[in-house]
Amino acid sequence: MPEFHNAPTLPLPTFPGSHIALDDDYVYLSGLNAADIHGGVEILGDVGEETRWVMRRLSHLLDSVGCTLADTVRVAVHLTDLDEAEAMNAAYAEFFTPPHYPARTCTESPRLLGGASVEITLTARRPVEPEPRGDA
Amino acid sequence: MPEFHNAPTLPLPTFPGSHIALDDDYVYLSGLNAADIHGGVEILGDVGEETRWVMRRLSHLLDSVGCTLADTVRVAVHLTDLDEAEAMNAAYAEFFTPPHYPARTCTESPRLLGGASVEITLTARRPVEPEPRGDA
Amino acid sequence: MPEFHNAPTLPLPTFPGSHIALDDDYVYLSGLNAADIHGGVEILGDVGEETRWVMRRLSHLLDSVGCTLADTVRVAVHLTDLDEAEAMNAAYAEFFTPPHYPARTCTESPRLLGGASVEITLTARRPVEPEPRGDA
Repeated sequence: MPEFHNAPTLPLPTFPGSHIALDDDYVYLSGLNAADIHGGVEILGDVGEETRWVMRRLSHLLDSVGCTLADTVRVAVHLTDLDEAEAMNAAYAEFFTPPHYPARTCTESPRLLGGASVEITLTARRPVEPEPRGDA
Repeated sequence: MPEFHNAPTLPLPTFPGSHIALDDDYVYLSGLNAADIHGGVEILGDVGEETRWVMRRLSHLLDSVGCTLADTVRVAVHLTDLDEAEAMNAAYAEFFTPPHYPARTCTESPRLLGGASVEITLTARRPVEPEPRGDA
Repeated sequence: MPEFHNAPTLPLPTFPGSHIALDDDYVYLSGLNAADIHGGVEILGDVGEETRWVMRRLSHLLDSVGCTLADTVRVAVHLTDLDEAEAMNAAYAEFFTPPHYPARTCTESPRLLGGASVEITLTARRPVEPEPRGDA
């Protein structure tokens, strides 16, 4: 059965969801935007900064369950203004080592919760633990 | 290869999709809204009731393949009016035992098929069957 | 750790993403629309043709990693005009053998990157390779 965790370093979700859902193979993070982050409301409106704040927290959430952004398989980016895709991309790209970019879809949502400009949903593959050695 | 099923208790999909896609590890449900449900058209416009109708049928679909809502790992909620998030959340939360909430993303879609106010897409992890006993 | 690939037959992604993310079990394709395809800009505006172009390339991407559309478990379709769902469905259905349709969700995005009318995101289960024979 999946496990569900909230990170003590982020505000508790204001909706019936968990920061992290976890099964044997994957980590599923709830969609996160700057309004979900302590102090994030102050930077709302700067899509590049919002993206950096969100990506740092997503990275932190992955770290809390033994993963890194390099384990990410799929990302969904929701923008309220698709004309800001370039600014979002520039900030987003800072968190990956080219060409190791996960699969991604970017669409437009008229509004996002909390008045954010960008929200990011991420799924990562959990690293395989080494098999116990048969000769041990 | 994945299997695809439709539930006899729901109208057949009006689009080229299946209610349920199934592989060894996960159950993938098509996005469902009240307009996809027998009698659901009559409650369109009440986002809380729509949410309850949809969640009951999603639960039923999971049950038909040996899962429950507690196996859910990820949910996507699409609302036509994000101001209705609170009413949707109240109805949605009735179907889970806090704090066991799956990862969730809620975004706005200007319209939804059939004129619904909310549509929900859900992915669940299939329970692991007990390994056959080696000494049997 | 997941692998990320771009297909030589498609233009390189214009965003920090890969055409294909791959782990042991699944293939994750980035959202693809006709503006992402050589020559696709010329057919923008015809949602049926856009759908066919996109589905052909998604099929090709799956083929490049040993999968087919029949391995697809989940599809997300994004339309800029939900009134075009019927035309999109007609084209989309050509790529599957009824009733073997993956789980699907179709929502509306006010705009899509590159001015496309439809964008499609697809996840497929990788076929299981035969187990090595224990008596070999």
